Amino acid sequence: MSETYLQQLGQRAKEASFALANLTAADKRELLQAIADSLQSASNDILAANAKDVTAAKAAGLDAAMIDRLLLDNKRLAAVIADIGNVIALADPIGREFDSRLLDNGIRLCRRTVPLGVIGVIYEARPNVTVDIAVLALKTGNAVILRGGKETVNSNLALAQAIRAGIAKFGLPADAVQLIDDPDRALVTGLLKLDQYVDMIVPRGGSKLQRLCAEQATIPVILGGIGICHLYLDKAADLSRSTSVIVNAKVQRPTVCNALDTLLVHEAIAEHYLPQLAATLSAEGVSLVGCETTRQLLPAYDVRSASDATYRTEWLSLTLGIKVVADLDEAIAHIRQYSSGHSEAILTNDITTATRFMNEVNSAAVYLNASTRFTDGGQFGLGAEVAVSTQKLHARGPMGLEALTTYKWLAVGDYTSRS
Amino acid sequence: MSETYLQQLGQRAKEASFALANLTAADKRELLQAIADSLQSASNDILAANAKDVTAAKAAGLDAAMIDRLLLDNKRLAAVIADIGNVIALADPIGREFDSRLLDNGIRLCRRTVPLGVIGVIYEARPNVTVDIAVLALKTGNAVILRGGKETVNSNLALAQAIRAGIAKFGLPADAVQLIDDPDRALVTGLLKLDQYVDMIVPRGGSKLQRLCAEQATIPVILGGIGICHLYLDKAADLSRSTSVIVNAKVQRPTVCNALDTLLVHEAIAEHYLPQLAATLSAEGVSLVGCETTRQLLPAYDVRSASDATYRTEWLSLTLGIKVVADLDEAIAHIRQYSSGHSEAILTNDITTATRFMNEVNSAAVYLNASTRFTDGGQFGLGAEVAVSTQKLHARGPMGLEALTTYKWLAVGDYTSRS
Repeated sequence: MSETYLQQLGQRAKEASFALANLTAADKRELLQAIADSLQSASNDILAANAKDVTAAKAAGLDAAMIDRLLLDNKRLAAVIADIGNVIALADPIGREFDSRLLDNGIRLCRRTVPLGVIGVIYEARPNVTVDIAVLALKTGNAVILRGGKETVNSNLALAQAIRAGIAKFGLPADAVQLIDDPDRALVTGLLKLDQYVDMIVPRGGSKLQRLCAEQATIPVILGGIGICHLYLDKAADLSRSTSVIVNAKVQRPTVCNALDTLLVHEAIAEHYLPQLAATLSAEGVSLVGCETTRQLLPAYDVRSASDATYRTEWLSLTLGIKVVADLDEAIAHIRQYSSGHSEAILTNDITTATRFMNEVNSAAVYLNASTRFTDGGQFGLGAEVAVSTQKLHARGPMGLEALTTYKWLAVGDYTSRS
Repeated sequence: MSETYLQQLGQRAKEASFALANLTAADKRELLQAIADSLQSASNDILAANAKDVTAAKAAGLDAAMIDRLLLDNKRLAAVIADIGNVIALADPIGREFDSRLLDNGIRLCRRTVPLGVIGVIYEARPNVTVDIAVLALKTGNAVILRGGKETVNSNLALAQAIRAGIAKFGLPADAVQLIDDPDRALVTGLLKLDQYVDMIVPRGGSKLQRLCAEQATIPVILGGIGICHLYLDKAADLSRSTSVIVNAKVQRPTVCNALDTLLVHEAIAEHYLPQLAATLSAEGVSLVGCETTRQLLPAYDVRSASDATYRTEWLSLTLGIKVVADLDEAIAHIRQYSSGHSEAILTNDITTATRFMNEVNSAAVYLNASTRFTDGGQFGLGAEVAVSTQKLHARGPMGLEALTTYKWLAVGDYTSRS
């Protein structure tokens, strides 16, 4: 039964994608406005549905942070709807022709950006993702199949219903946006194998979800969002300006993927600098896990002993790994071994050291004298963020609208044959 | 044991990829020249190894076409080596910086093209692929793991040995190119799951290999090379010029992926045109499989009856499917249902019909008034062809050097924190 359900879901999405593929930029702006209006009209229903989710979450004993993540109130819902206006204002990446050339046989060839077709997105907790992803998909002419977390199923249903009503009012198939609301996990693995209809899967969630998608999907998957981020403090860094950057990378928002996980410190400055850094971090509530040298240099700070597993941990909390390294080579080797390919930074005033780090560290984002916290579609000026990719094909780092497009080759001849 | 072998293979490839990543364009030209020289020196050994494969193939009763595919002689080997010169002459896509921007916080941000890292390529029969792929991978700074067909294992070993000797002579790790020569199929599935080390898998082979990769790989796979190609002959086509294009698409090289599989004919011209087309195709040795209307219009040509399975067949031979359609809508609907997303063409002089076809048919290559046979890296002016992708992420259609690259984001601040 679930197979039939998924087949129909896929067929309807593919069918809807044909209707979306050739909309003009103006059409899509109007479509998104219709969705914003529909969400506005349905605000009371959406908030009521969200209240049900909140009640259920409390009854299930979810912690306060989790409940806050899934909560919608008037102000948050208004912000979600207002964000649609920002997406409406973005440039439309579809329909651009590039790499145009005249071949020797007279054929005129070019590439044209087109939608991917059907995108599947699997996500957790926050209900605003339902709106964000639907809007970004439609802006780029794609149909989308959404699978949210079970904690927000009522909110997601109400949001999807309003989005679909807006699409229908505009005169397009409502199935351009479909939500899988059945909590059966077999539907997730089934979705991952729907390669006849779905062109790309974006998992937005933790490492277990990413791994499930990598292992089960027969559809291309954009892995991402797991950041084991490093900052290498070189001996030639301006130490008087370094502490604020390290604190920013670790403390400003410790629960996100671009927060700092491991600090690598050049041994020549460790003895002098680590005690003053530890004092500042400690005042910010950061607890430390360090190598033996770090522990010896910081006897007052109860530094736990770091293991191989420590360095493979994305903390997502106010914990920081620290390792004293002999030189740049050891720092780069450590990053190559333990990084998830998300974001790495170096602090140094030495141009040779800086250049080698930027060249030899190969992560999605590499920073010189800046916090890792900037790896974000908004911060990078992309106007939107679908996800942060940590794999190397198609899109790397923060994914803007461009990542939801592909191209086709168009060739115009004059009854031309190949000789 | 095979797991340890694969882990070591992956580790060595990854290690070599670090040495390759920051070579200059001049370095890589010299590296490829060293490989060409090494292959030249080893010519006798390579031809002797190939003779063993040919003898074994004859003993195993392989057909003449297959034996011809795996045969190397002096002339063919010289051509393979000469092709390295063409790759040396191509522009190097690595190290280009683009999308540079100055953010409001003073960070200067850009993207830089970098190698993917380690590429795994699984291929069949023709030994020249061993050289082609190794050279294209190295040109773009990638390490490569090769897995050829068992019919050419001696040839591939001799070629890989010469390539590795050339790399070592240039002063880089020979493990930049590694060949899996053990015929154990578990090594293929193992390679597909080596995601810790391998960044991309390119299967160059038939639909069974493609499917295996889609289902088993935990590494991103570039599917491709399966072409169920359509040509729609519109009622407004110049019929006097159409026959040569149709014949070219079907007959010029029927065994390749961009050859024509199904001809769709507008019903208004079918009665007049199909008999004359059938006469020409028949003279070229083409046998026909058609819809009921086609069969009625061509009683003299022994047209077999087409089924759903017919239209899902990539013929790779002198067989052509023919279907008479009511209009453009039916042609587009047929293509959407049966195409593998490779190449489709329309012949028409009507600009409205042509525009709709180009907009609404979404395959890797869409042709107006030209043969489908042009879908090829060389024909498209890419200078090289890694494979022809029929999926939508990363690369679509003929893949040139660009498809072996990714980018990283580089950000330079002044001890900049996120506010």
